[in-house]
Amino acid sequence: MRAQIAKILRDSGVEPYTDASGYVFDETPETVRIEPCRDVIVVKPRNTEEVARVMRIAYEHNIPVFVRGGGTGLSCGAVPTKTGIVLSTERMKRIEVDAENLCAVCSAGVTLGELINAAESKGLSFPPHPGSESATVAGMVATNAGGVRAMKYGVMRNYVIGLKAVLADGEVLSLGGKMIKNNAGYNLMHLLIGSEGTLAIITEVVLKLLPPFRETLTLAVPFRCVEDAIRIVPKIMIESMPLALEYIEGEAITYGEKASGKRWPPRDKANLMVILDGDSKDDLMRKAERVAEICERSNAVDVFVATGREEKDLLAVRSLIYEGIKNDLIEILDVSVPVAKIPEYIRKCNDVAEKMGFKVINYGHAGDGNIHQHPMKRVGWEKDYEGLRMRFFEIASDLGGTITGEHGIGALKKDHLKHFISEREYRIMQEMKRIFDPKGILNPGKVVDHVR
Amino acid sequence: MRAQIAKILRDSGVEPYTDASGYVFDETPETVRIEPCRDVIVVKPRNTEEVARVMRIAYEHNIPVFVRGGGTGLSCGAVPTKTGIVLSTERMKRIEVDAENLCAVCSAGVTLGELINAAESKGLSFPPHPGSESATVAGMVATNAGGVRAMKYGVMRNYVIGLKAVLADGEVLSLGGKMIKNNAGYNLMHLLIGSEGTLAIITEVVLKLLPPFRETLTLAVPFRCVEDAIRIVPKIMIESMPLALEYIEGEAITYGEKASGKRWPPRDKANLMVILDGDSKDDLMRKAERVAEICERSNAVDVFVATGREEKDLLAVRSLIYEGIKNDLIEILDVSVPVAKIPEYIRKCNDVAEKMGFKVINYGHAGDGNIHQHPMKRVGWEKDYEGLRMRFFEIASDLGGTITGEHGIGALKKDHLKHFISEREYRIMQEMKRIFDPKGILNPGKVVDHVR
Repeated sequence: MRAQIAKILRDSGVEPYTDASGYVFDETPETVRIEPCRDVIVVKPRNTEEVARVMRIAYEHNIPVFVRGGGTGLSCGAVPTKTGIVLSTERMKRIEVDAENLCAVCSAGVTLGELINAAESKGLSFPPHPGSESATVAGMVATNAGGVRAMKYGVMRNYVIGLKAVLADGEVLSLGGKMIKNNAGYNLMHLLIGSEGTLAIITEVVLKLLPPFRETLTLAVPFRCVEDAIRIVPKIMIESMPLALEYIEGEAITYGEKASGKRWPPRDKANLMVILDGDSKDDLMRKAERVAEICERSNAVDVFVATGREEKDLLAVRSLIYEGIKNDLIEILDVSVPVAKIPEYIRKCNDVAEKMGFKVINYGHAGDGNIHQHPMKRVGWEKDYEGLRMRFFEIASDLGGTITGEHGIGALKKDHLKHFISEREYRIMQEMKRIFDPKGILNPGKVVDHVR
Repeated sequence: MRAQIAKILRDSGVEPYTDASGYVFDETPETVRIEPCRDVIVVKPRNTEEVARVMRIAYEHNIPVFVRGGGTGLSCGAVPTKTGIVLSTERMKRIEVDAENLCAVCSAGVTLGELINAAESKGLSFPPHPGSESATVAGMVATNAGGVRAMKYGVMRNYVIGLKAVLADGEVLSLGGKMIKNNAGYNLMHLLIGSEGTLAIITEVVLKLLPPFRETLTLAVPFRCVEDAIRIVPKIMIESMPLALEYIEGEAITYGEKASGKRWPPRDKANLMVILDGDSKDDLMRKAERVAEICERSNAVDVFVATGREEKDLLAVRSLIYEGIKNDLIEILDVSVPVAKIPEYIRKCNDVAEKMGFKVINYGHAGDGNIHQHPMKRVGWEKDYEGLRMRFFEIASDLGGTITGEHGIGALKKDHLKHFISEREYRIMQEMKRIFDPKGILNPGKVVDHVR
């Protein structure tokens, strides 16, 4: 099969790469990831026109195409499930920062790190920061990536003002552009954002840029229980809308310290990390004082204000928690609930976990209700884990939440999706899939089941 | 026909109102509005379940349904085009501000004014402000309304985190909720936002709220030409990201003065109005000084800094320009282009207008590229106007812009839409329409042509 696909591609002038190792996994932990299909050919188009050529061939010959960005996903969204083509965007690297229109035009394969550098070199910034800087912009748009700054600065969806996408049959859609407002008909651009490579292949994006961050300051605030910590989240938001407001359990901090080699100030069971941004150091100190008062009134054990070196260390510990913990966990979950429901969600999940003999370490984006739970490995976890995960999803759903706030459905949560949205909503999604991808060749086995 | 529909409704327990005067127009100027169908019955459901009942009846009997909010639209989006039912949301008035989760749950018919008051009574704010405070929340979501604050605070789309919508056959979709992040499958919520009542009837929305505005300050800055004014827009944005950054021609100000009875400081041909918001008066004065320096370096004739009473007067003049001008204009257009293209757009349009004997007065949202052009009436305008409008749309499109940044397609620009998006994009929109509304009964004659 592979050889046949390689021949079809070569005959049409597309160079096939037969070594697919390095192209069949993403960052999903080994413990839960699906078994990939290794019978795939890799292609590395350089621009939209070359992607269109690949799709015309694939459409004609009914060949599945798995689009791949930085491979940093956590839901097996980029893992090939059938014999077919892995389309890597690694060569699509054009980037143009348009300082006059406060935006950047990026080819699919530009990484978050490259975008941040390019924006900063023109005195601008790109606020969303969903973890790994080797994620690609098109991957971040296709998964509507989030991250710690979403509470103040929004998720990827809030930054996309234009995109080019190649349809299943190779036709190119050009949506939006460099204008901020656009109400010309149904917004297909927003339908493609978050569609995980299953409706079209995003080849170029236009992203809004913002003025640079001037100053930041970070508070680390330990509490004895999650209720004390979360109760004040809306108060802190109203008082000083932080850049980020993270909830972190004591044990998670220990993992972050181990991975970073840096020290966090004394912590307790439940901790808040509050990153403030502002125009001047004075402005920030005033905001920090107001936040500190709120924390103290809610039984904070202490309040640490960090700037300069100390702030860098704190951020390093936070950003390396996952690095430290990932070998001991089963999975990183990303349920999202209304902010005020976080304590109830965590308490109910911990009760369930305890009964089933699991330990769960939590941290996450308290400011937007998106909690990362880490069920830890134990002997015999394999047979009980799906039951635990399903209970967590049910608890989130009962509290008005969703099973995935950031990582998307991919292959991992495809069967869960059906249980947590209405039948009608699921059927409409399938109809969307059929319109955009009538032959079911775009990233099959992800998000929804294809029906002809 | 009307009597028959009334009977069908009454037999199913829905009260029909036969006096439809007051329900067949929106705010579209008489000069360009379409002739409505007056053979309609009005219904005034009180909640989602009653809307669902109306839709079940309409679906069964193939009766067109025209959903109507505040009737403040400018594209004939709410104007009935066929014998059928006008579904007014005026009785759907439930509003719950959830201060713990920084959001408001509103029934369709809650007005912008009511939402703002409810938010402020709990110490919060709702930033988007698309003009009329008698617009309803569901109408603003259905049209993805914009307004002057979009550059810093975004459009309606950026505030919707959940909604309920009744489908053509009466089934209720419940999408999103009180969580900020949600990546569970294709985002149907964002497809419904801006769909102008043609895909489903939005009956409830969950809207994000923000901390209150603390302080504002407004600068009025006259320039001799549009180039000098617009050139510095990105610089002002980078330096101090205003709440609003408006471009206003001198003649427009005169109309605003007349309507408001207030005085604007000396103006010139091209004027910027810069509204800054911040934490403290000191903070704002510092920002204002930096903005003033930028303006002076770009040949500003003068810089007026207004606070208190003077600021109120300025804002009154700006907000009443349309009131003052509306009897003399043919239409208010709302093209959107990349910010840096505004001068070229205005210059090219003015050239065309001059050749065709039209005078055009411009103002608009310089910070987001959305320009309101007002072609003024002249003898014999009727036979030439469509040609002028079409040329403006072509110029906008050539500059990478869109024919409507705010007001939507409605009935007025339905035929234009086809010319300014690709055939494939149009066809996909029609397929969306077919999936959501197979019988073509939802707001027929708007946005796209229905095909079975």
